[in-house]
Amino acid sequence: MDQQIQEIKQWLYQAGDKIKSSLSAELSIDEKSSRTDLVTNMDREIQNFLIDKVHQNYPEAKILAEENGYNELTSMSGEVFVIDPIDGTLNFVLEKENFCIMVGLYEEGRSKLGFIYNVMQDELYWGGRGYGVFCNEKQLERPEDKALTEGLIGMNAHMYLHNHYQAQAIGKRSMGVRMSGCAGIELIAVIKGARVAYLTNLSPWDYAAGCAILDAFDFRYSRIDGQSLSFNGREHFVAGTPKAYSQMIGML
Amino acid sequence: MDQQIQEIKQWLYQAGDKIKSSLSAELSIDEKSSRTDLVTNMDREIQNFLIDKVHQNYPEAKILAEENGYNELTSMSGEVFVIDPIDGTLNFVLEKENFCIMVGLYEEGRSKLGFIYNVMQDELYWGGRGYGVFCNEKQLERPEDKALTEGLIGMNAHMYLHNHYQAQAIGKRSMGVRMSGCAGIELIAVIKGARVAYLTNLSPWDYAAGCAILDAFDFRYSRIDGQSLSFNGREHFVAGTPKAYSQMIGML
Repeated sequence: MDQQIQEIKQWLYQAGDKIKSSLSAELSIDEKSSRTDLVTNMDREIQNFLIDKVHQNYPEAKILAEENGYNELTSMSGEVFVIDPIDGTLNFVLEKENFCIMVGLYEEGRSKLGFIYNVMQDELYWGGRGYGVFCNEKQLERPEDKALTEGLIGMNAHMYLHNHYQAQAIGKRSMGVRMSGCAGIELIAVIKGARVAYLTNLSPWDYAAGCAILDAFDFRYSRIDGQSLSFNGREHFVAGTPKAYSQMIGML
Repeated sequence: MDQQIQEIKQWLYQAGDKIKSSLSAELSIDEKSSRTDLVTNMDREIQNFLIDKVHQNYPEAKILAEENGYNELTSMSGEVFVIDPIDGTLNFVLEKENFCIMVGLYEEGRSKLGFIYNVMQDELYWGGRGYGVFCNEKQLERPEDKALTEGLIGMNAHMYLHNHYQAQAIGKRSMGVRMSGCAGIELIAVIKGARVAYLTNLSPWDYAAGCAILDAFDFRYSRIDGQSLSFNGREHFVAGTPKAYSQMIGML
């Protein structure tokens, strides 16, 4: 197991190096569903790199990933790698920072390990049930179980603007609303205790790694109606400390 | 002049060291106007440290600063140091990151030099008319003059929620809305080209340093009605690339 963790960490560090060395090169950028939903040659290149690593080392594992026809899976049975090659592509293109590479490992639908790599900060957060949570080599303590009223919340701009699922009341009850444009950064913030919650709308590759790490701390997450995540299509998503999560579910 | 720049940079690095070495100590936290408007012993300590440095080195200069009775000035005549000891106090308390120390130097109401120190990233952005813009020792190029439609915008949560001054239409026209809870971080993002604009509600110590740096690139800023900033009380504030600024003013 330790070997598997080291192996996946190395994939991510190598993928990060590829991105860093590409930053001065011209990107090839395509629009997907809208002018703000982008994919670049680097998203595809990093996804292919990580898929090759999975195929070489875990030939029987299944893959669920954001780009290029890997974005649906009929079932989460067996061993599944869930991959987001660049989470926060808009930030990657426009800011050249505030994006992550994410890998989640699931067995029979249950989280085993999660990895979120904030490339430009060179911080790789990883962990899983029974393994604890780490930033690079350093183990993190479980953050205090703060209430919604005691902390900041990461929020989806569209849900906040249109007050979906009481998003405005939830924001008001918190100490303040933050929007980074990157699920990995928001989930890292909850994992390290910088924020108490995250309310948004995500695809499986956006939440798989983060949920596996949250499981190490027994922090809570679900669909916004309290049901389990389906790992199939976009879902309204809520995560947080046990106290903040319960408060939010109680308001919905 | 070079000596003055080196001197003020050293004040900021020293102030940052004080904050870093205090991070594990218990903070003394008081509420100002509301439960989310906080001041800590470190805000006061850093302000006193910087005020002492100004008094020692520039005994004739005036001071405008956030805490403790320095927050009003009848006129910007002469030499004025505008100081925000901790910009983003809520982030400082809750996140232990994403806050800045800021110093702006004005002469007869005209910007001369600005310094924004993102303490936990150890990035000190500084510059002024005729001096260029730097991050620590490295000179930065002027970012491309992108339009609002081509970039991200930093946005005040309250203005966005209540659609003050067309904030929602402005956000929609941009590539996306970001909220960091720290004026310094938003202004740094505009200065380095990561965002094209910032729409918010600020006090003089929140904008003085950033505006002095924006002047080095001839980027634009003003009150939201296009009038000059008064350096007296909170004002609705807009800043950005020349193109993005003009588009926003045209929408207001």
